[in-house]
Amino acid sequence: MNIYNNIADIRQSRWADPQLSWGLVPTMGYLHEGHISLVERARQENDRVGVSIFVNPTQFNDPKDLAVYPRNLERDLAMLQAAGADLIWTPTPEQVYPPEYQTYITVETVTQVLEGAARPGHFRGVATVVAKLFNVFQPHRAYFGQKDAQQVAVIKRMVQDLNFNLTVISCPTLREADGLAMSSRNVNLTPEARQQATCLYQALSAAKAAFEQGERSANHLRQMMTVVIQAAPLARIDYISITHPDTLMELETLEQTALFSMAVFMGKVRLIDNMQMVS
Amino acid sequence: MNIYNNIADIRQSRWADPQLSWGLVPTMGYLHEGHISLVERARQENDRVGVSIFVNPTQFNDPKDLAVYPRNLERDLAMLQAAGADLIWTPTPEQVYPPEYQTYITVETVTQVLEGAARPGHFRGVATVVAKLFNVFQPHRAYFGQKDAQQVAVIKRMVQDLNFNLTVISCPTLREADGLAMSSRNVNLTPEARQQATCLYQALSAAKAAFEQGERSANHLRQMMTVVIQAAPLARIDYISITHPDTLMELETLEQTALFSMAVFMGKVRLIDNMQMVS
Repeated sequence: MNIYNNIADIRQSRWADPQLSWGLVPTMGYLHEGHISLVERARQENDRVGVSIFVNPTQFNDPKDLAVYPRNLERDLAMLQAAGADLIWTPTPEQVYPPEYQTYITVETVTQVLEGAARPGHFRGVATVVAKLFNVFQPHRAYFGQKDAQQVAVIKRMVQDLNFNLTVISCPTLREADGLAMSSRNVNLTPEARQQATCLYQALSAAKAAFEQGERSANHLRQMMTVVIQAAPLARIDYISITHPDTLMELETLEQTALFSMAVFMGKVRLIDNMQMVS
Repeated sequence: MNIYNNIADIRQSRWADPQLSWGLVPTMGYLHEGHISLVERARQENDRVGVSIFVNPTQFNDPKDLAVYPRNLERDLAMLQAAGADLIWTPTPEQVYPPEYQTYITVETVTQVLEGAARPGHFRGVATVVAKLFNVFQPHRAYFGQKDAQQVAVIKRMVQDLNFNLTVISCPTLREADGLAMSSRNVNLTPEARQQATCLYQALSAAKAAFEQGERSANHLRQMMTVVIQAAPLARIDYISITHPDTLMELETLEQTALFSMAVFMGKVRLIDNMQMVS
């Protein structure tokens, strides 16, 4: 496993044999089993796997969130070694955004709602850094977790619009034994908030059960999820949403595939979760 | 020479032999000797040469300018065949910007002045379409005319910021016998305006002579160029500028390399020209 912070070193390693296919797993580090499942999927589908570890400052709309974002490079590298990753990029913020830096990518419509509405500038930072990662690694396939469903929708839209020559692959959310979606941010939950944080999964599961029994009114399903979340004393709902999975337009009646998603503050930590449901 | 409008066909032709190096010459068609000089330079430096012909609507801030932009695909293709181009992309606007299209690239500081100030949105359209062309052709080198000096500065900045794995090569402006910079727009000049349009070259040449004799005051040099332009009855100055060649920040005293540039309406046609001067 090669670990570099310089782009020139990454490119040299990437292009040592131009015949090989590459998968890329972009991460912000503090890896968990969800990330590792992306690396494993990338290994199955490509000759080589690249991973980036970079806590991207331009996608944090809240400086406090950036300040407390957890980091543990040594443990990350050990996990990636064990998972069989080949090439790791660990740049500094100055290498990614040098002093004269001034270029940004905006995906317009699909970023106006949900996370994009709650976190101004977030997806501009995501789209920009992901485009840079694509150009640094030039992968054939790039792997993202479905937990960040809107991120997947934004990146798929960017790849299609800007004609990046690669395939975006969205992988299932991994969950703790009690259903909480794995997230690097979970470590910042207080013990009490951690316990109550299962309310997101419970709300989605309740909606799923109702959906499978034939409930097709988005209003009813949103109301059901709201009630479940509100039963957790530490929970404060940011949004609860039922949308088209690609356009993220809010639905009234569920006919085909729908994305159920939510953002909930558990104490000071903002958690997101989602499920896709298919009629 | 292969001519396609489909991206899939372009990619297949581009990647038929992954070992070959590729040069790209992006154009809006209605080719002149300036474009052909780019194709010839690209042939010298690469195994294969790709050319795009696309009048990009998103870079026209003025719909009237887009409406009268000259086109002659048949003649363009004959010229490219004679020049030895290998692969031509001639997409429709709907292929480049399908209905759900929503992704744009903004280069911030360097687009705030000169053409960027005079033509709102112009460089957002340029940066976006050029990034798409880079991703469609994936060239090793891309060739642009120095006549569009700010365009070169913007694209170089974008390539550096977004880590595109290619080199931007800026090629000298070609001129008619009387000094007028070659441009597809020259065909729209009335005979009288065409005759007076040499004032741009004359103004730049006068400034160059003074510069070479030691004049280092940007104010004096700008004043000199203004006087020359104003001697042409049909000329209306949009801007006359002396800047750093990369940052495009206006200079007061000329110490190292400087970019002398101008935009002048000759009747209804807006012309640009520039020269770089090195102390």
